[in-house]
Amino acid sequence: MPQASTPATKATPKTVIQYVLGRLKDLGVTDVFGVPGDYAFPINDAICADKDMRFIGSCNEVNAAYSADGYARVKGLGAINPTYGPGELNAIGGIAGAYAEHVPIFHLTAMPSRDLQRDRAFVHHTLADGSFDLFYEMAAPSVCARTIVSPQNCVAETERLISAALYHRRPVYMAFPMDTSNQPVVGGGSPEPAPQSNPASLESAVNAIVDAVTRAKTACVVPGILLARAGLRREATALIDASGLPFATMIMDKTTLDEAHPNYIGMYDGRLMEESVRAFVEGADCVIGLGALWSDFSSGAFTATLDRSKTINVFHHSTRVGDTFFEDVEMKDVLAALTARLPKCADGKRPKPSDLGVPTGTGDDKITAEALYPRWNRFLKPDDILVAETGTSSMGLGMAKMPKGATFHNQTLWGAIGWATPAAFGAAIAAPDRRTVLVTGEGSHQLTAQEVGQFHRFGLKPIIFLLNNNGYLIERLLCKDPETYYNDVAQWHYHLLPQALGCDGWFTARVTTCGELDAAMSKAESCGTGVYIEVVTDKYVAPPMAMKLHESTKALYKS
Amino acid sequence: MPQASTPATKATPKTVIQYVLGRLKDLGVTDVFGVPGDYAFPINDAICADKDMRFIGSCNEVNAAYSADGYARVKGLGAINPTYGPGELNAIGGIAGAYAEHVPIFHLTAMPSRDLQRDRAFVHHTLADGSFDLFYEMAAPSVCARTIVSPQNCVAETERLISAALYHRRPVYMAFPMDTSNQPVVGGGSPEPAPQSNPASLESAVNAIVDAVTRAKTACVVPGILLARAGLRREATALIDASGLPFATMIMDKTTLDEAHPNYIGMYDGRLMEESVRAFVEGADCVIGLGALWSDFSSGAFTATLDRSKTINVFHHSTRVGDTFFEDVEMKDVLAALTARLPKCADGKRPKPSDLGVPTGTGDDKITAEALYPRWNRFLKPDDILVAETGTSSMGLGMAKMPKGATFHNQTLWGAIGWATPAAFGAAIAAPDRRTVLVTGEGSHQLTAQEVGQFHRFGLKPIIFLLNNNGYLIERLLCKDPETYYNDVAQWHYHLLPQALGCDGWFTARVTTCGELDAAMSKAESCGTGVYIEVVTDKYVAPPMAMKLHESTKALYKS
Repeated sequence: MPQASTPATKATPKTVIQYVLGRLKDLGVTDVFGVPGDYAFPINDAICADKDMRFIGSCNEVNAAYSADGYARVKGLGAINPTYGPGELNAIGGIAGAYAEHVPIFHLTAMPSRDLQRDRAFVHHTLADGSFDLFYEMAAPSVCARTIVSPQNCVAETERLISAALYHRRPVYMAFPMDTSNQPVVGGGSPEPAPQSNPASLESAVNAIVDAVTRAKTACVVPGILLARAGLRREATALIDASGLPFATMIMDKTTLDEAHPNYIGMYDGRLMEESVRAFVEGADCVIGLGALWSDFSSGAFTATLDRSKTINVFHHSTRVGDTFFEDVEMKDVLAALTARLPKCADGKRPKPSDLGVPTGTGDDKITAEALYPRWNRFLKPDDILVAETGTSSMGLGMAKMPKGATFHNQTLWGAIGWATPAAFGAAIAAPDRRTVLVTGEGSHQLTAQEVGQFHRFGLKPIIFLLNNNGYLIERLLCKDPETYYNDVAQWHYHLLPQALGCDGWFTARVTTCGELDAAMSKAESCGTGVYIEVVTDKYVAPPMAMKLHESTKALYKS
Repeated sequence: MPQASTPATKATPKTVIQYVLGRLKDLGVTDVFGVPGDYAFPINDAICADKDMRFIGSCNEVNAAYSADGYARVKGLGAINPTYGPGELNAIGGIAGAYAEHVPIFHLTAMPSRDLQRDRAFVHHTLADGSFDLFYEMAAPSVCARTIVSPQNCVAETERLISAALYHRRPVYMAFPMDTSNQPVVGGGSPEPAPQSNPASLESAVNAIVDAVTRAKTACVVPGILLARAGLRREATALIDASGLPFATMIMDKTTLDEAHPNYIGMYDGRLMEESVRAFVEGADCVIGLGALWSDFSSGAFTATLDRSKTINVFHHSTRVGDTFFEDVEMKDVLAALTARLPKCADGKRPKPSDLGVPTGTGDDKITAEALYPRWNRFLKPDDILVAETGTSSMGLGMAKMPKGATFHNQTLWGAIGWATPAAFGAAIAAPDRRTVLVTGEGSHQLTAQEVGQFHRFGLKPIIFLLNNNGYLIERLLCKDPETYYNDVAQWHYHLLPQALGCDGWFTARVTTCGELDAAMSKAESCGTGVYIEVVTDKYVAPPMAMKLHESTKALYKS
């Protein structure tokens, strides 16, 4: 994950857009997702002219945002470049999702030239009221910092935004009036230093944690996404290794730490996932969250019950121990100090992480949940990137035991259906040497399905499982009458889609029985091409977690 | 087009959502486009439970907004129902486009229950900061009025929003906390009266116009979209009939008045379209705009030059004569008064509207612009709904002479590529008995192509022409280097798309020669099914208007 850094590229005088792109490259961003558009041409041009960067032409802007989100989950930072007005607004939902989930993305957009703005000209892509900063205003809640760029402020503002994006691990917004991008940079500025802990506050926080852990008969760690976003997985693993503490993971945080680690005890999601893990975590005297967020879904629809006084949470820049907050304490410093100071705990009696077990069904047997999810679990290999769409499939896969190095990605908090397909594309762009596996329900897939064609266009070979259960199953389980027709979707012939989208040479299949599924999965492993398998199940084939959620709607909605 | 009205449905006590839906039905809205979602279930449920309404499940939310936009262009008012957070934000670009183009849409969205809001609960679809009204705030610039609904304010707020939507012909936003929708309506309220002209101001405005026209040697009318949005086409046609005035139409306003009318003289777009029309309009002593908007594209990239003192414009609620504004003057009253009072003008020498002429090419000839656009023009029939995507194809079709009753729809001002495909679907839902013809470039189509499957799902039989010219042609013509790779798009096999999207039984074809195009168009006329024809041309096959725009970029961008 990128950390604040001095610019590596200082050389000759630069244009405004060259400066910004150069700094993004310093931070590891080499691909910008976008849809070109006239006011944005100078930005589009500069990206294409830079031999170390690629403009990844997305099918539409929200897909671009989701792809940048997937990219940033892998590389630590992403970027999009839609055009002014329609372009940026169509991306804003995806950027807001990245904000919610602490995924930093540079939202680079355009504006009409300052001359047109001064004239209050009646031009396309505006609301025709002479206002040009409305979309800049609308962007505010979706980003942690924003600016309208000029040659004078370019350096200082770019550095401020980099600093904000890395401090909060959230998106930032930069709008370039059309005439500014190619102007030479005029004003100065320099990178802001990385944040430092207040030594006294750090000492107090660490003392409090060490004290709580030392006093506890049993303690455990709950590593969370803030840890992953800060790029501190290695440091947290060192803490686990040194302390011997067991860790359980909540659904939003799945694979924050490696599930192949011997101290992993399983998934904790209140009463919705593993009962033995729930009992262990809730029975512990001290639960140390490392940037875990207690949302509705992560807390098992609020069925997780932890006495706050027994809990600790280490955030990016503060730490809470019971009811006491310690401010200006950097997560990495807390991890390092705890690694050095926590006592090594005894192994004790701990749950063993379960996997999804042995798949049922053979031959002409229908594909049930007991047939499907265990097969998917066994299909996964070390270092896979698994992108799981919000819905029953991600709930089923939440209980998969992920192989060493394999990562699980889901938009648990924001929960925009459709996110997974473009996010998987973005992740594959970020890590073309890893295997990307996408699992999505067909209802969600319909929102953003066109992005499938991009994998082939960019020479990527994902493995895509499309779960066709004839509608929005998760909604059938949460709404009043599961058969209400709004849960139905258009009946596509999904297995024909990749070819229509230009994915020549892919292996595609439509499977309705366990035998067909086995054959297709076996071919998928070895065929060496992109893969798209439509898995057809009965309408109500759902994994246990989804069924438990179905029983928890009153607690979930308070309505 | 709907006008303010007394509720037709007063009967028994209603729930909050029933009241709102009942009022929308009074105004002619019988179809709500949306994507269901958990907080929105009570709204989704109520729509499905109403036997006089349909929930039209769109593939995604921006497509829903574009469809409602197309629907409202035909029926006068539309509605969408995405869910809270991700749903509504993904629709916001489409709603902003409707705002820009004066298309009224009810944006009905949900919120978590008031209990969850009071708890500042950490729930999905939020930014997890305990704030629940951020998206309500973000919606502000995209709508002319908005509210968060409660049982107490439901009637009064619904009536206020109806009034605002009809007054401004722009979208409005209503958010329903999950627990409110099914509560009985408590508070009172009544429909706001339709706006009335100030008699003195009306008299002054009409006198000024009659005076200007009487003094003019030549005068002409430029009817605009505000007229169409207000549902005053018939009244404006009566004015033309009574006065004998000729009318020319700008590109954004195409078919506001019927192009088969004998007084129609052609398209006026500065120096970009018909020179004879430009000369006539700009040579007239008095140009009467009826709600026409002088945007960049409508003014031929600012090449239209009219002396303001010679121009009049009649807006919805005000009228400008030269530099004088008359406020509180209703468009319909101005039209009626002018119809009664304007002198009948002599026929004089006027341009005759041209059409696109005789198509060139036969047999194996490639499909050139001279082959294509005239063929499309001849293909059109009376009462067709033609939805033309922003890009070179709409510029080419701008010069088509539309048959009697046929309407041309384009999002000229907002210019969101991708709008046309879902908008055509919405228009077809609104007018299933008319023939809907969609013409779109393939780059734009990729943004929203999944909506093609909806036509078949709802038993509609559109005729879709997909122009495949290997990338974003309009952008090649406007950017610095036409060959820059951001103008390329993924290479789909478009003619295979309808089948993949479930359009069983459709006639689909891929044509590369004039002979193939003729055969396919002939079959399209008679086959009685949905039609999807991929028309393949060389990369730079563009109509004259696009080429002229290519030469006008400096004026257009001032950059």
